[in-house]
Amino acid sequence: MLTNTRTVPVEFGHCDPSGIVYNPNFFIWFDLSVHALLARGGLSLKALIVEFGIDGIPVAEYQCKFLAPARWGDDLLIETGVVKLHRCAFDIQHRVFNAGLLAADCTETRVCTALDPQQKRVRARALPEKLVAAFSGGGEGST
Amino acid sequence: MLTNTRTVPVEFGHCDPSGIVYNPNFFIWFDLSVHALLARGGLSLKALIVEFGIDGIPVAEYQCKFLAPARWGDDLLIETGVVKLHRCAFDIQHRVFNAGLLAADCTETRVCTALDPQQKRVRARALPEKLVAAFSGGGEGST
Amino acid sequence: MLTNTRTVPVEFGHCDPSGIVYNPNFFIWFDLSVHALLARGGLSLKALIVEFGIDGIPVAEYQCKFLAPARWGDDLLIETGVVKLHRCAFDIQHRVFNAGLLAADCTETRVCTALDPQQKRVRARALPEKLVAAFSGGGEGST
Amino acid sequence: MLTNTRTVPVEFGHCDPSGIVYNPNFFIWFDLSVHALLARGGLSLKALIVEFGIDGIPVAEYQCKFLAPARWGDDLLIETGVVKLHRCAFDIQHRVFNAGLLAADCTETRVCTALDPQQKRVRARALPEKLVAAFSGGGEGST
Repeated sequence: MLTNTRTVPVEFGHCDPSGIVYNPNFFIWFDLSVHALLARGGLSLKALIVEFGIDGIPVAEYQCKFLAPARWGDDLLIETGVVKLHRCAFDIQHRVFNAGLLAADCTETRVCTALDPQQKRVRARALPEKLVAAFSGGGEGST
Repeated sequence: MLTNTRTVPVEFGHCDPSGIVYNPNFFIWFDLSVHALLARGGLSLKALIVEFGIDGIPVAEYQCKFLAPARWGDDLLIETGVVKLHRCAFDIQHRVFNAGLLAADCTETRVCTALDPQQKRVRARALPEKLVAAFSGGGEGST
Repeated sequence: MLTNTRTVPVEFGHCDPSGIVYNPNFFIWFDLSVHALLARGGLSLKALIVEFGIDGIPVAEYQCKFLAPARWGDDLLIETGVVKLHRCAFDIQHRVFNAGLLAADCTETRVCTALDPQQKRVRARALPEKLVAAFSGGGEGST
Repeated sequence: MLTNTRTVPVEFGHCDPSGIVYNPNFFIWFDLSVHALLARGGLSLKALIVEFGIDGIPVAEYQCKFLAPARWGDDLLIETGVVKLHRCAFDIQHRVFNAGLLAADCTETRVCTALDPQQKRVRARALPEKLVAAFSGGGEGST
């Protein structure tokens, strides 16, 4: 399964008055990490939209544990990988390491949606084969 | 158990190019809702810090499902309530309603921490009785 | 000219490790204040898009002074008003008061844009008369 | 004078429903660029706090023009440099290039503050000589 690793320096502006990362920033980083994973697989949401009429890949679920604090000045390593492919959805795990220790562990499920022209609403649709192929590949790297 | 309800209008700037709420904003709203819940119980993190030497109430876990999209112009209703008290932690549930439909359901666990002067690090500590009393109370309201 | 006033409580999550508002949050509040001003005048960006083929009202310029700190727990009062109308643009001033003192003073210029179908790019266009009428009106209020 | 250059890819999550960068993100990038400039000069706000009793380097003023849109998928180049040193403050200019075109031009003034123990409030203080030396140096680079 495809994986990608990124480093994120914890900046002053990411932190709250307690001096630790203000929590919602992790979810920004997880989102960026999903897009970086797509890029690692030679894909982009933009191309999926154009090529397959995808409307988006919204998050359906997060299961996230924070195990150790991340502070201003720390360098985080985020390992992101596909863990499971469903018919219309996929599961991605982000493991955040801080100085070698697992600081956060988050699994998210994203659904592939498309506009249903009949019903004029957005519906889940089968993952494009191209995405399945890219996510199933053993590619690995860091951005 | 203490509960509080807030309304959040979904603004242009909360949304991404798909026209739906950019996901990390929900976690900002959940954080604001926790502070509003404290206020509903006559408490504040600031007062807890001063009065009990609390260092913070960091999130240890999120379990969050997104069930329906929230779009620019929607008015969200966020019902936040205490669901369980542990010795050093508490569980809070946020249910986000959009036009009467449950759009998101998130349970978070927060830990009460204090600085351990001996070890110069932050550790979990028992919930202050004042917080337990406020959270156990049947107060209910909206802000 | 149209004006509107909003109160913004400075929350824990708005602040940085110095305990003061993390600066970019002011620009989020200014943006929300522009949309609230539109609403005060019976308008919305959404309606302008649908009714007049407006593409957006992007910011062309900010001139912003920060005169006093805003801290976690402060209640800010943001007075927003139209100060000048140009052919394709308008100037808006935001004055942020903290406990009666002027804490920030920001003037921004927004341009009204539309898609030029010939050139397939976005261009400035004349302000819709409806917007001129609403902004010229003496309406005043708070949200 | 010290300068530094950074590249910032415009991601999906940086953009609003118009498909362009949501404006407050520029101010996050400007803040990160100031910290990167400090690092380029061998400094950090953290070290300045510890070594010189600095309280912070809050922004006193922004003068910012947006000249061209930045869209999802664009790669921005941010050139940040010291333009003027005052006794207690410094001016920094950020020029954002998008595909070679100047997309934004922002000058900000930051004040160096310290806690006045007598008055228990924060006051402007003279720039530390170390900071003056680093900012006056001709160092140049990219991060």
